[in-house]
Amino acid sequence: MNRIFNFSAGPAVLPLEVLEEAQRHLLELPGVGMSILEISHRSKTFDDIIQGCEADMRTLAKIPADYKILFLQGGASLQFSMVPMNLLPDGGSADYIVTGVWGQKAVKEAKKVGAVKIAGTTEADSFKSVPKQQDLKLTGGVPLVSDMSSDIFSRPIEIAKHALIYAGAQKNLAPAGVTLAIIREDMLKKSPASLHTMLSYAVHAENQSMYNTPPVFAIYVMRLVMTWLLKNGGLEAMGARNQRKADTLYGEIDRTGYYRGHAAKDARSRMNVTFRLPSEDLEKKFAKEATAAGLDGLKGHRSVGGMRASIYNAFPEAGVNALVDFMKEFERTNG
Amino acid sequence: MNRIFNFSAGPAVLPLEVLEEAQRHLLELPGVGMSILEISHRSKTFDDIIQGCEADMRTLAKIPADYKILFLQGGASLQFSMVPMNLLPDGGSADYIVTGVWGQKAVKEAKKVGAVKIAGTTEADSFKSVPKQQDLKLTGGVPLVSDMSSDIFSRPIEIAKHALIYAGAQKNLAPAGVTLAIIREDMLKKSPASLHTMLSYAVHAENQSMYNTPPVFAIYVMRLVMTWLLKNGGLEAMGARNQRKADTLYGEIDRTGYYRGHAAKDARSRMNVTFRLPSEDLEKKFAKEATAAGLDGLKGHRSVGGMRASIYNAFPEAGVNALVDFMKEFERTNG
Repeated sequence: MNRIFNFSAGPAVLPLEVLEEAQRHLLELPGVGMSILEISHRSKTFDDIIQGCEADMRTLAKIPADYKILFLQGGASLQFSMVPMNLLPDGGSADYIVTGVWGQKAVKEAKKVGAVKIAGTTEADSFKSVPKQQDLKLTGGVPLVSDMSSDIFSRPIEIAKHALIYAGAQKNLAPAGVTLAIIREDMLKKSPASLHTMLSYAVHAENQSMYNTPPVFAIYVMRLVMTWLLKNGGLEAMGARNQRKADTLYGEIDRTGYYRGHAAKDARSRMNVTFRLPSEDLEKKFAKEATAAGLDGLKGHRSVGGMRASIYNAFPEAGVNALVDFMKEFERTNG
Repeated sequence: MNRIFNFSAGPAVLPLEVLEEAQRHLLELPGVGMSILEISHRSKTFDDIIQGCEADMRTLAKIPADYKILFLQGGASLQFSMVPMNLLPDGGSADYIVTGVWGQKAVKEAKKVGAVKIAGTTEADSFKSVPKQQDLKLTGGVPLVSDMSSDIFSRPIEIAKHALIYAGAQKNLAPAGVTLAIIREDMLKKSPASLHTMLSYAVHAENQSMYNTPPVFAIYVMRLVMTWLLKNGGLEAMGARNQRKADTLYGEIDRTGYYRGHAAKDARSRMNVTFRLPSEDLEKKFAKEATAAGLDGLKGHRSVGGMRASIYNAFPEAGVNALVDFMKEFERTNG
């Protein structure tokens, strides 16, 4: 085995135990005689998988009984449309808090459905910070919707504060190809009857995410990841471990001033750690040499530049330590 | 190994060689140090996979250069909406030929977008037949769109007759989770600018199916399936083999009158072979005993009843022969 440390922002690293389990049974699920890639989504076998995934997720994140769990397709990007199509009432308006390019994209789709008010944005700051709670211009009593693609299940979540949480799976949950939605049941009444069938939360909920063929394999891997999370102490333990990983990495970034954190200190992500080097040439050299040293995927998003180390749930502490060692050595030889 | 014969209608059997290749590299793609489940969709590795898939598909099906190949999500069911959203002009109308429940579902979504004319339907016949060409009430000169989920690449296709072909992958192409669209470039100009981003063929085409994260693993398996199809003689060879499989099975159905083909003889599918037994009790017994004998997934769709043997590209001739032997023995002991 020659697995490297994968700092990619998504698709991203998965737990080795999960990959090993998926590999072991890829030709035949035990007692079934078929691959998970071949079984009917209407089979008892798959029913056990999707229900097991849901049951473990409810335990893991303490999801209340009045929330439905949906397994959808199209990523968070399709949710940018489905959220307003389903929840934005005729003639009503929605408050959006924009903290990055993904929020901007969500606003763009919502405007195709109805009125949008920007309750807060840090665009002027190039999204290096997040808006302060007291500065938000919020309409009172509206349901809270959150895109948790990057941080879902990385620490305890107060589900009951939200009307809808959604997340593309390919960061903390599963391989690309499935989108998770956790939606409070009363929200399902809002889906207009005239909506296209596949875009309606109500339809997916009524059909237990099987109105049509769901992405069977991605849901199967998510089911294995839920088991792995429970086995590894659940969200409290994940939160503590992720905090440790982030503290270690930000500690090195702040140590001498050679590296500079991209985000404001009070807006730092525990999942996506972004930093700059003294010059773009050094950044290129850093990315190249890091890849050669088995630390891959560190090149920042093309819209931001610099470095980005994504350290989701499945990213091992050993990888963070290896990056810190590499950063020290790089600074010593290129300082 | 204890793999059974899987007659499921989809998700369906995949070539054993493809499963073995996917299994072999599930922890690490050679030279990459990551699983296919973990690699970035912006990586060179994935670029080679998706471009290789497209190149092999173009060779396999002789797809002309003025057609774009799109890898989408949401299955054929989302295409029922995307087709009219993109192609049905304001104030125009579309002709639909309805040959089953899937066609009915497509009409239902199209009516949410614009005017629909039923150019032909065999609903009165419970869809046991297909409309005759001379009976179709067609508007002249309109682009032809075809749902080929069941039969894509099962024999040579005249791509150039079509403006758009789409197919959910889980029958003849790949595991569930990716939807193929082959679209003539001039059709892309029809996508309205006001359309939601993720629902626009033009957006997906401009971004080479990577506007957002595509279903990486399902595309990877499709790439392996394309290689397998080419290696096994391409569409001519597939067509001959599939005809042989269908002839063998229909031959047994017609042999004594004990079994009865569900579809009219001139409307028989080479992919989904449906038949009845003398009574529903015998059908239940047949399904149960077949499963016990390693012939699984034969129970018909809940809306039709009876038996359905799906024998897509990857379904082996040995499995058809095993079913025929089982049918003979069942008739002998239950006749």
